Amino acid sequence: MPLLRSWVESANAPDHPFPLNNLPCGVFSLDGEEPRCGVAIGDFVLDVAGLEEAGLVALPGGPFLDVPFWNDLMEAGPVVWAAFRDRLTALLSDGAAERAAVEPFLVPLAGATLHMPFLVSEYTDFYAGRHHATNVGTMFRGAENALPPNWLHIPIGYNGRASSVVVSGTPVRRPWGQIKGPDDAAPRFAPSARFDIELEMGAVVGQPSTHGQPVTVEEADAMIFGYVLLNDWSARDIQAWEYQPLGPFQAKATATTISPWIVMKAALEPFRTSTPAREKPLLPYLHEPRPMLYDIALEVALTPEGGTETVIARTNYAEMYYSAAQQLAHHTTSGCAMNVGDLLGSGTISGPTKESRGSLLELSWGGKEPFPVAGGTRSFIQDNDTLTLRGQCKGDGYTIGFGECTGKVIPALADPYAR
Amino acid sequence: MPLLRSWVESANAPDHPFPLNNLPCGVFSLDGEEPRCGVAIGDFVLDVAGLEEAGLVALPGGPFLDVPFWNDLMEAGPVVWAAFRDRLTALLSDGAAERAAVEPFLVPLAGATLHMPFLVSEYTDFYAGRHHATNVGTMFRGAENALPPNWLHIPIGYNGRASSVVVSGTPVRRPWGQIKGPDDAAPRFAPSARFDIELEMGAVVGQPSTHGQPVTVEEADAMIFGYVLLNDWSARDIQAWEYQPLGPFQAKATATTISPWIVMKAALEPFRTSTPAREKPLLPYLHEPRPMLYDIALEVALTPEGGTETVIARTNYAEMYYSAAQQLAHHTTSGCAMNVGDLLGSGTISGPTKESRGSLLELSWGGKEPFPVAGGTRSFIQDNDTLTLRGQCKGDGYTIGFGECTGKVIPALADPYAR
Repeated sequence: MPLLRSWVESANAPDHPFPLNNLPCGVFSLDGEEPRCGVAIGDFVLDVAGLEEAGLVALPGGPFLDVPFWNDLMEAGPVVWAAFRDRLTALLSDGAAERAAVEPFLVPLAGATLHMPFLVSEYTDFYAGRHHATNVGTMFRGAENALPPNWLHIPIGYNGRASSVVVSGTPVRRPWGQIKGPDDAAPRFAPSARFDIELEMGAVVGQPSTHGQPVTVEEADAMIFGYVLLNDWSARDIQAWEYQPLGPFQAKATATTISPWIVMKAALEPFRTSTPAREKPLLPYLHEPRPMLYDIALEVALTPEGGTETVIARTNYAEMYYSAAQQLAHHTTSGCAMNVGDLLGSGTISGPTKESRGSLLELSWGGKEPFPVAGGTRSFIQDNDTLTLRGQCKGDGYTIGFGECTGKVIPALADPYAR
Repeated sequence: MPLLRSWVESANAPDHPFPLNNLPCGVFSLDGEEPRCGVAIGDFVLDVAGLEEAGLVALPGGPFLDVPFWNDLMEAGPVVWAAFRDRLTALLSDGAAERAAVEPFLVPLAGATLHMPFLVSEYTDFYAGRHHATNVGTMFRGAENALPPNWLHIPIGYNGRASSVVVSGTPVRRPWGQIKGPDDAAPRFAPSARFDIELEMGAVVGQPSTHGQPVTVEEADAMIFGYVLLNDWSARDIQAWEYQPLGPFQAKATATTISPWIVMKAALEPFRTSTPAREKPLLPYLHEPRPMLYDIALEVALTPEGGTETVIARTNYAEMYYSAAQQLAHHTTSGCAMNVGDLLGSGTISGPTKESRGSLLELSWGGKEPFPVAGGTRSFIQDNDTLTLRGQCKGDGYTIGFGECTGKVIPALADPYAR
């Protein structure tokens, strides 16, 4: 598919993240106004709540958009999602008759505040990157036990904490926790000294499933509304001590940052790609009837306080061993009900090379090999470092972007129980 | 505290679960009416939504009660919780002047349908029973590695799935899942053959905490609104294959059943008791300033289809090594925000003896020692078995009950993907 030309001129630049082909969904506010649904187009937010109120967008079952979340539109289902995109595409296309009516609803992106784009119902984080699982497994359990025996059969996941999901730009406070080094006699309660990121994609579930009824991979794909960038902040020292036998808990509960824009699945269609060849055959319920991963180039940048940015990793979502559709299908096998607003983290996306590792744990090999950044080196995150994830799909004369997924790590509370 | 006598005569029987001392919170409906908040008193549900509408209960910030959940009242905070109890106690006390006005709002329990008493925000399940952890650890990892090294320091927990929490009486369908026996070459997709219960208490969080701000054990106790009985249904064969390295996932996502009545913390005050002596000192953030467990006698009953009930286990909530307040305090250490409606499962409550084990896994020692039930034996749950949890506190001439927490296991879907 070529670039869809828009009368919003900035949207037509081949490198702009928000062309007419994209139309990602966010929540924005202007000074003193209530947050509401908006769509990014070029250098603007299109106030779709305003368009809906003015009757320029009319969707069956609506209104859906004059609220600070996309859950209502998601709940309306794929037919409405398509009608919504079709209508916006018509309104914003080069030569659209409605240009004069729509133009007043364009708000400069630079002047808008972006909020969480949806209400997170429940959050699940997976572990579906083979390079990451192998790297971490090697560090935590040794090379012989790196990949657990179930890993090539199950998209391994665990439930995370929806209450800790925040939007890009939210400062992240370094957590306290129980920490015990291998040579310590007893644990101590201290700020994490090995605070880290995980570069992930997040799939946003837009349709529910029925309690007691598993869904197929094809049905799962149809339930997904779109994708965000996702940073699953991780305290590696807390994790190492707590995670056996029931998995990560407080190590992953400080914050999970997502990009401000949900890129709808429809915008990603041209970039579908297959999961890698299987080393062992999957059980039939996990077979993918068609490509369900996406070719999304990803990078991680680290910027020290007052310093210069260093891109510390470059990789691609296509590195994953399991797609979000496979993960979602597996998530329902036991009858678990999925709801509108559920968020599925892909798992850390590391590539095969050292430069393509999606966490500092891997980049510094457990802290043993500090890596260079502008003005110094890093093993783990230092206070006041800003970590930024970016992602893009390169189309025929256009780019699909997600906006930045960024967070600055602020110092731990001096005394977490001082009141 | 002695029995508080009520003009509702049935509430004064020393063995009745719902005396005036209790006043547990549920959601009920009558034929063709909308579900709304109710409180159990003797053989009746008191229609507190109706009382509020009639002005007989007036709480600051209300109305709270003409909704099918207790979340609104919980959000109002402990001062309102106390005012609510005080008012109901006054209205229902023997000799109350308002008796004639209140009497029309009594609905026979036998004719009411009970629903989920609150909206579950997020669900966390802990692993705080020492006998259970030792038993399961011995079976899964051998006697030498039974209790993980962190267990005496951390109230180990993992995030569960709020969407799978159901109210007592909801049938539970045997799940499908990936299963691989130790001698199988590859996993298969099949109905669970080792479906089980876990006898637990659930703490209902009634007040939020601030993202980024840990809470003390005393603050955590103040955040808890009340307690329910909780059955964390568990597919042991799915669990054994999936749970390494990130913990249980689909094995625990089929259903979690809770009792229909939330017993408010105030009703449990006379039954507070201390956690057991510590084998190793706890870090200060986990110290309990006063007793925060409760003396609640618990039992599990199994009833085959058309058969006779057998009580298969008797134990006590006081067996737990960690209280819900300690678990909740730990839950916030990393800055994790807690919300109104969060549910914390205690972990399986097993006692020291064979007859006090809170799961079939332990009762049958991994299936190796089938135990007797009326008309046969059991290793794990058979189709159409009904499992029932009961709990009670014995006061001075009265009993505090939770109502039954029961579920019948219905056969697995023949083909989970047939449509």
